[in-house]
Amino acid sequence: MPKTIKKVGVLTSGGDSPGMNAAIRSVVRTCAYHNIECIGIYRGYQGMIEGDFKEMGPRSVNNIVNKGGTILKSARSTEFRTPEGRKKAHENLIKAGIDALVVIGGDGTFTGGLLFNSEFDFPVMGIPGTIDNDIFGTSHTLGYDTALNTVVDVIDKIRDTASSHNRLFFVEVMGRDAGHIALNAGIGAGAEEILIPEEDLGLERLLESLQKSKASGKSSSIVVIAEGDKIGKNVFELKDYVDANLPEYDVRVSVLGHMQRGGSPSCFDRVLASRLGVKAVESLIEGKSSYMVGLQNDKVTLTPLEQAIKGKTEIDRELLRVSDIMST
Amino acid sequence: MPKTIKKVGVLTSGGDSPGMNAAIRSVVRTCAYHNIECIGIYRGYQGMIEGDFKEMGPRSVNNIVNKGGTILKSARSTEFRTPEGRKKAHENLIKAGIDALVVIGGDGTFTGGLLFNSEFDFPVMGIPGTIDNDIFGTSHTLGYDTALNTVVDVIDKIRDTASSHNRLFFVEVMGRDAGHIALNAGIGAGAEEILIPEEDLGLERLLESLQKSKASGKSSSIVVIAEGDKIGKNVFELKDYVDANLPEYDVRVSVLGHMQRGGSPSCFDRVLASRLGVKAVESLIEGKSSYMVGLQNDKVTLTPLEQAIKGKTEIDRELLRVSDIMST
Amino acid sequence: MPKTIKKVGVLTSGGDSPGMNAAIRSVVRTCAYHNIECIGIYRGYQGMIEGDFKEMGPRSVNNIVNKGGTILKSARSTEFRTPEGRKKAHENLIKAGIDALVVIGGDGTFTGGLLFNSEFDFPVMGIPGTIDNDIFGTSHTLGYDTALNTVVDVIDKIRDTASSHNRLFFVEVMGRDAGHIALNAGIGAGAEEILIPEEDLGLERLLESLQKSKASGKSSSIVVIAEGDKIGKNVFELKDYVDANLPEYDVRVSVLGHMQRGGSPSCFDRVLASRLGVKAVESLIEGKSSYMVGLQNDKVTLTPLEQAIKGKTEIDRELLRVSDIMST
Amino acid sequence: MPKTIKKVGVLTSGGDSPGMNAAIRSVVRTCAYHNIECIGIYRGYQGMIEGDFKEMGPRSVNNIVNKGGTILKSARSTEFRTPEGRKKAHENLIKAGIDALVVIGGDGTFTGGLLFNSEFDFPVMGIPGTIDNDIFGTSHTLGYDTALNTVVDVIDKIRDTASSHNRLFFVEVMGRDAGHIALNAGIGAGAEEILIPEEDLGLERLLESLQKSKASGKSSSIVVIAEGDKIGKNVFELKDYVDANLPEYDVRVSVLGHMQRGGSPSCFDRVLASRLGVKAVESLIEGKSSYMVGLQNDKVTLTPLEQAIKGKTEIDRELLRVSDIMST
Repeated sequence: MPKTIKKVGVLTSGGDSPGMNAAIRSVVRTCAYHNIECIGIYRGYQGMIEGDFKEMGPRSVNNIVNKGGTILKSARSTEFRTPEGRKKAHENLIKAGIDALVVIGGDGTFTGGLLFNSEFDFPVMGIPGTIDNDIFGTSHTLGYDTALNTVVDVIDKIRDTASSHNRLFFVEVMGRDAGHIALNAGIGAGAEEILIPEEDLGLERLLESLQKSKASGKSSSIVVIAEGDKIGKNVFELKDYVDANLPEYDVRVSVLGHMQRGGSPSCFDRVLASRLGVKAVESLIEGKSSYMVGLQNDKVTLTPLEQAIKGKTEIDRELLRVSDIMST
Repeated sequence: MPKTIKKVGVLTSGGDSPGMNAAIRSVVRTCAYHNIECIGIYRGYQGMIEGDFKEMGPRSVNNIVNKGGTILKSARSTEFRTPEGRKKAHENLIKAGIDALVVIGGDGTFTGGLLFNSEFDFPVMGIPGTIDNDIFGTSHTLGYDTALNTVVDVIDKIRDTASSHNRLFFVEVMGRDAGHIALNAGIGAGAEEILIPEEDLGLERLLESLQKSKASGKSSSIVVIAEGDKIGKNVFELKDYVDANLPEYDVRVSVLGHMQRGGSPSCFDRVLASRLGVKAVESLIEGKSSYMVGLQNDKVTLTPLEQAIKGKTEIDRELLRVSDIMST
Repeated sequence: MPKTIKKVGVLTSGGDSPGMNAAIRSVVRTCAYHNIECIGIYRGYQGMIEGDFKEMGPRSVNNIVNKGGTILKSARSTEFRTPEGRKKAHENLIKAGIDALVVIGGDGTFTGGLLFNSEFDFPVMGIPGTIDNDIFGTSHTLGYDTALNTVVDVIDKIRDTASSHNRLFFVEVMGRDAGHIALNAGIGAGAEEILIPEEDLGLERLLESLQKSKASGKSSSIVVIAEGDKIGKNVFELKDYVDANLPEYDVRVSVLGHMQRGGSPSCFDRVLASRLGVKAVESLIEGKSSYMVGLQNDKVTLTPLEQAIKGKTEIDRELLRVSDIMST
Repeated sequence: MPKTIKKVGVLTSGGDSPGMNAAIRSVVRTCAYHNIECIGIYRGYQGMIEGDFKEMGPRSVNNIVNKGGTILKSARSTEFRTPEGRKKAHENLIKAGIDALVVIGGDGTFTGGLLFNSEFDFPVMGIPGTIDNDIFGTSHTLGYDTALNTVVDVIDKIRDTASSHNRLFFVEVMGRDAGHIALNAGIGAGAEEILIPEEDLGLERLLESLQKSKASGKSSSIVVIAEGDKIGKNVFELKDYVDANLPEYDVRVSVLGHMQRGGSPSCFDRVLASRLGVKAVESLIEGKSSYMVGLQNDKVTLTPLEQAIKGKTEIDRELLRVSDIMST
């Protein structure tokens, strides 16, 4: 029989993403619904080490479902990577009477949580929060859908000025290891070409494609590039390359940067956060541990944290084809 | 061996929804990609009867991926319900050399398309476009995701003023037969209660819930109501009822109306439209007919139009529970 | 020599409007800048009577410059209309050591403030906050610019669906006594006709205009109507009238309602709020009282509260002509 | 007696800005209202040289009031700087029967127009369209208000992630010679410091200010920097400088770039565009030439183009003080 859970700690860690607040709210209210106490832990694992805790009732999370960022703050903790750090963190949890954890974040967050669980046999559940959508075991991470909307909104604006001047824009979006944002936002924004880490288009093919696009009568072009694109050049080098090889183009660069992490979450991300928070807490109540809650085939599921960390998401190759056809 | 398709007609019919333009663009460009001609048919089946056609090349759909509404216009056609109307429509298609149709719309659109196919053995593919998400055979209809974001944005604004004055708002959203918008946008917007056609909450329970909410220290409340809610009262009658029974509440009503149908589509709807358009045209090329393209488990699938029309979508009952917990 | 001000109270009263939080923030920080204490008074004059006060330092107003609504809440107070109520309020201020007031709101708020000043010789400054822009002595009230953007955004969405179906929409916007929102948002949204309290267009002319519009080849029409329009019919009666007289039109109605009061303030409203807050506090420090701070010819000015209350704003009649020309 | 104007040409030139389309629409419809023909000239002065003209009636500008960019496209023309180029342009106008010009753009556009007027005695009116607000003779240029809203929206998103991680962001906004965007959007977005071309804050003071900000308990900071800031370092050099001198800060950089030029215009810009277009055309009808229409003290006015070009706008120094107080 599982140990009865009486007090759950919740934290956000790693890069923040829209929907984290909605997930915190869901964890807090699900605890209240089941008459469990809930403790907010500030600044991720570092706050766990420093005992930076705050009791949270259902009214402490009023009016945050629509707020970007995380009210619990986030931080990276080098101290938590040491056994001493984790020991201190564990002592703080025990002292505070916390008997289970919900950790919201990405790979690094889950790795920390899993290690903590294995060392202290402490129940931990993970909620995937990152705009990059690069977590195995869930079709969507919290913040990904919002980031896609942010990116297409911005590229829509860039296209206004691109069309007015018949220009070519290279737009860099987030995604060091995963092209999900670039691929989906690129299709959504009507990009000519999309450069992602998973696929080396080749510089030749890029030039050809741009030439074809010009010949087909298009008055402006957008190329969307993931930070970690495989083509081996960053966005400014690409501009120089195209400047040198296609002088008929007037090329500009835009690096979207951190704005992609912020903003009020989309309805999808708010609902997803609410569902995942419920499942995380209720799984702890049922005695489960070391799972990530996620969305698969539109249903909330559990994936062992270990798999979530090791597994590799893949881009939907159908989308590469769709992108290709759309730029006809 | 299927008859070779040389010219595809595309139309939008019924209520418009965001993403229809992106779907038109996808159909047009997929045709161009496969060297098939494409004809835009204006004002749905009525334009088919009147021969209101226009040739469309890949450049005719520049810069519409992000536009709400439908550049092909929509209309309801009573004439198409008569055999004479459909005969005239068929003659026009033949005269124009069109040998297959893609129809974008909802139930009524598909019913018309299926009838047309059965009478003239004319290849027809359907793309589900309606904000209500009430089509069987697809987890998402075009425009639904956008409408959800529109609704939560508006309710966020209403909540600003609701909180400032400690008021209760009844917000009516679209959905005559289906509560998908109300249920998801209600959770996303942090609604106290959600009234939908699929579930009779009961007036008693509504009052109780509002009383409990007040007692729990909430300073304002939002109740989201689908047009076709089952409680048997419209939104103004509900206000009167609560005014009479809970005089401590200052109640206001907001009917969101047609704004829910408009606006630039979300990234999700743009990508979905692009995928569905490709699949619709390529299915025609493969000799298929009388299917609806849709999304199931994140994959593009085909559902016989007949099933799409007869089948009934159901709300996800997990969400009713999540809503209940979130309003703790 | 003016009495030295040591502690300023700030409140919001009447209908809330975007920018009120930015004004509160400005009052609080200007006080801090001048080493004056600042007390937030909750729920307007009612909170003054109940002693619902809270000390506010510069960090209490972090991250509210962009939030709609008012963190100090608003309320209407019937008790404050009685001499006993005001006496109690005055005693509370004295007890709390508050020696001057900044009141943010509209006509009613200023009337209360002026009365309070005259009865107790208590220094009061007013900041105009209402979306209606109907305050004399300022070209812009806080929230007006934001409301205009909210209204045109929504009408843009409505136009998407109006154009797709060749429909006529009557859109009702706020403005019981003043047509500023209707007139400006109507021009901004490309309305066919604009009905406002200041001008009786006449039903005949409306019909003529709509007929002319149809004849000119327009595919859809928007008519914007202020709540207090002078034509003598509400928006639903107008629909019935047009239905009866112009059956060729498919008419729909949309009442925008309270969403117009909410939302994140525009840059203009945030900057205006910041400027007005500084001026209000610094005027109190200089020993001034019973003025409204406002914007005239892009400069911050003072208008005696009495004039602000009695004076009547007028619509810019040039805009009526511009609207007329734009609907050519 | 002025020559009767029968056909007006309209063009956009230089950097595009939101509201240009609304101005084109206003020029076209005002012409129609006065029974004057209107010719759209594509790609600015270059299109004038190439005879790239198109007749425009009131229906050619349907549904563009809310669109960013310019449907007439813009371009820079080196050929127009030569007497031969201008001669060719003049011949094209004469051949097309155009007897007056409305040019929409900035300084360079007006300089071209004035030269053209002086050489050929050809009536020209200017409409100020640029997001930078750096034109003398108008309090607002078309697109400026929209750009301010775009910038604060983006910085609001950046602040979400800045607050979650206690970071410092340097945000670069447009404005090579003028700090209007930086100053107003900086105040609107609650920036700690604002660096503009008109004022050398000094690196020392920047460091002090950031230290004070940290000491005061602020958890995150935004510094807004105009492209042409006077401090003598670009945004990346500033980051390096602060990294070296204030290691306690985690500094990030965001360069907003061209997105600032795009997007649907704000209500203010749409109304302003409508007013200026009417005035430009009606001034030509009255026989006036070589003026810029603009907004001064909320009224539409005329300023000789020569003054508009030579005059220098100044920032409102009151705002520097407001910014200083707001960052308390």
